[in-house]
Amino acid sequence: MTAKEQAIAARNACRTVQTLDSADRVDAMHRMADALVAHADWLLEENAKDRTVAEQQVATGDLSPSLAARLKLSKARIDSLADGLRAIAAQDEPLGRVLKRTELASGLNLRQETASIGVVLVIFESRPDVLPQLAGLALRSGNGLLLKGGKEAIHSNRAMFKVLTDALAPLPAELFGLVETRSDVGALLSLDDTIDLVIPRGGNALVRYVQNNTRIPVLGHADGICHIFVDEAADPQKAQEIVLDAKTDYPAACNAVETVLIHKDYPAAPELLKRLKDAGVNVFGGPAAAKAYALPEADSLALEYSDLAVTVELVDDVDAAIQHIHTYGSGHTDAIVTESDAARDRFLAAVDSACVFHNASTRFADGFRFGLGAEVGISTGRIHARGPVGVEGLLTTRWKLEGTGHTVGPFSRGEAEWTHRALP
Amino acid sequence: MTAKEQAIAARNACRTVQTLDSADRVDAMHRMADALVAHADWLLEENAKDRTVAEQQVATGDLSPSLAARLKLSKARIDSLADGLRAIAAQDEPLGRVLKRTELASGLNLRQETASIGVVLVIFESRPDVLPQLAGLALRSGNGLLLKGGKEAIHSNRAMFKVLTDALAPLPAELFGLVETRSDVGALLSLDDTIDLVIPRGGNALVRYVQNNTRIPVLGHADGICHIFVDEAADPQKAQEIVLDAKTDYPAACNAVETVLIHKDYPAAPELLKRLKDAGVNVFGGPAAAKAYALPEADSLALEYSDLAVTVELVDDVDAAIQHIHTYGSGHTDAIVTESDAARDRFLAAVDSACVFHNASTRFADGFRFGLGAEVGISTGRIHARGPVGVEGLLTTRWKLEGTGHTVGPFSRGEAEWTHRALP
Repeated sequence: MTAKEQAIAARNACRTVQTLDSADRVDAMHRMADALVAHADWLLEENAKDRTVAEQQVATGDLSPSLAARLKLSKARIDSLADGLRAIAAQDEPLGRVLKRTELASGLNLRQETASIGVVLVIFESRPDVLPQLAGLALRSGNGLLLKGGKEAIHSNRAMFKVLTDALAPLPAELFGLVETRSDVGALLSLDDTIDLVIPRGGNALVRYVQNNTRIPVLGHADGICHIFVDEAADPQKAQEIVLDAKTDYPAACNAVETVLIHKDYPAAPELLKRLKDAGVNVFGGPAAAKAYALPEADSLALEYSDLAVTVELVDDVDAAIQHIHTYGSGHTDAIVTESDAARDRFLAAVDSACVFHNASTRFADGFRFGLGAEVGISTGRIHARGPVGVEGLLTTRWKLEGTGHTVGPFSRGEAEWTHRALP
Repeated sequence: MTAKEQAIAARNACRTVQTLDSADRVDAMHRMADALVAHADWLLEENAKDRTVAEQQVATGDLSPSLAARLKLSKARIDSLADGLRAIAAQDEPLGRVLKRTELASGLNLRQETASIGVVLVIFESRPDVLPQLAGLALRSGNGLLLKGGKEAIHSNRAMFKVLTDALAPLPAELFGLVETRSDVGALLSLDDTIDLVIPRGGNALVRYVQNNTRIPVLGHADGICHIFVDEAADPQKAQEIVLDAKTDYPAACNAVETVLIHKDYPAAPELLKRLKDAGVNVFGGPAAAKAYALPEADSLALEYSDLAVTVELVDDVDAAIQHIHTYGSGHTDAIVTESDAARDRFLAAVDSACVFHNASTRFADGFRFGLGAEVGISTGRIHARGPVGVEGLLTTRWKLEGTGHTVGPFSRGEAEWTHRALP
């Protein structure tokens, strides 16, 4: 099948799946979970092929060790992926949930129900454990799913895909499609009449490429320029722990902190800088901090280092911090550390980002940590879904109206009356 | 100001407005309503200028009489627009509504709140009464609003804009911006870092133009190819009334019916066709109906006539009707007329459109009729908002997390535990 035929087949399959009972989809989720466990040995063999290639590439400097490390599957990981599928299966039925019910007029009742979006294309990098999570979320919510994984994980992804797709029957296997080439991706990005949503999960370059090459709505984040504002009234111990955690726990993550804004009257700034340097962090300064603390000046105030490096800058007060974040941030996750209720309230009310935190590390911005179960991605867009996105990012709504022969004419002529009464 | 400066000013203004109390926005809504009434005479004078030009254009055949008719404002209409603003002001506060609250771990509490989207660009045609409704919805939901109206209503729109914007003070007047040239629209469509949503309200050509010329998310509908399926078990009286209403009440509307699918065993098809013809409707046939009833064949099965014309086609059963709708429809509004519970249930479950109706005219698909108050538009997209869209189409969410110094490290090391407990 061509990529286009795969997309059309996924569209038709999802329409079939959407009309099945919840139990049919839940049963298939359990079959997928069982199949992962049953075929664990083969999955690990195929994964080993990818890892062998990756190790060679690491040896020749063609792949970073951290990327290679993310390829690794294990029996324990496969078990936990199966558990994850069972957990998604156990969640409340996402489809057909009535969000709103209104009597428009006597005998004319409207309801708004959750519904599948349709066909979703996800482009993801290396990690092969992403595939079963996406397949689970898509099936649970009745969506068709087209997958394009990274070439480093090609054997793992093919094996995962085969195991999961074989387990779908009697549901149509075409619900899922795997595409492997860049030209296939290009073909899919042009199918805005068949594909409803694209989720690029990966670096900046991937997200920008997708945004620039499709009319299909894109859910994702290009940049993760996260800030922590250490207020004048911050507890120094909390400030140090939070900043250290946010920078060093996983520096390449999109929710790692990139800029630390320090209130000009915060007394413990030198200790904070020392802690960062002691942890191996390269500390750069904005104009004011570079001067005050003899730091090398940052190239820009809007840098995503994705590494053990950070920009520090001094600001006059919480409003200056907010202004800085609005000017240089990416609307992903921004935090304040303070013991002042007024500063906390001002920050939480005014910072216009997907996630706004008080006295907590930016690293908490994550679907699993937020309790959403699996995550389809993190969105810095303001449309459809924002921040960490779970199954609700794969849902839309439908309006259903039931009458007994109602027409609008009598209402226009004043012969019939609207009631517009909210129903329970 | 250039269009770009207007957009940036609207962005800054909306950030200010978002942090004000609900009462500040509500008070401004009442000032706007009062101002419309107080300046009604001037608004009508300015409207008369547009109508004079329009009448000349109708006389020379350069403007359709129906478009000219839609320009007309009246004292009564202005009063009802003011009432509309007061009704939006009286609605529940849309911002900061807590949608979800979760304890992630001891002392670490997450909430998801409704928030403004940011800056919305609306491009609308001729009707000057659209402007105050949009201004009201935008202000109530804390959004900046850039408006581009049709040139037929230029005096009316300028006057409306001035009256409403003057009434904003002490809120920043830059919250609203009026742009008047095509080149300004082009400039705005390139500002995907400043404008969050574009809503084109107008014909097919406008919507397609916008979709093809921006990376900003677009909310709207290009086509309104609505179907009514008259089932074998339809009540002939209801079927005739509904089809007639859906075609003739306002043939140019996007929710008017364009294709009537008739079950091959529906006994009263000839009467239905006669009623349509008697009402002055040009009836075209799909291949089967053209043959069975000697009708001129329709050029295509996916036609939006927007006029007193309709395509009729025969189908074998409800599933064939659904298949036809999925193949040729635009996902706007589709209805079934039947007394059969099984056919109704099948149709409501399977038809993948924004609005799916039973025994009711497609003309009910409308924000006011749905009880949403004013309407920002109707969306056939599946992302963000679908069908008639009220104030909720101008909202997004923010995640707010409050801790007491929480870091992710202890959770990774197994020293801290997730609770992930839903809070009331």
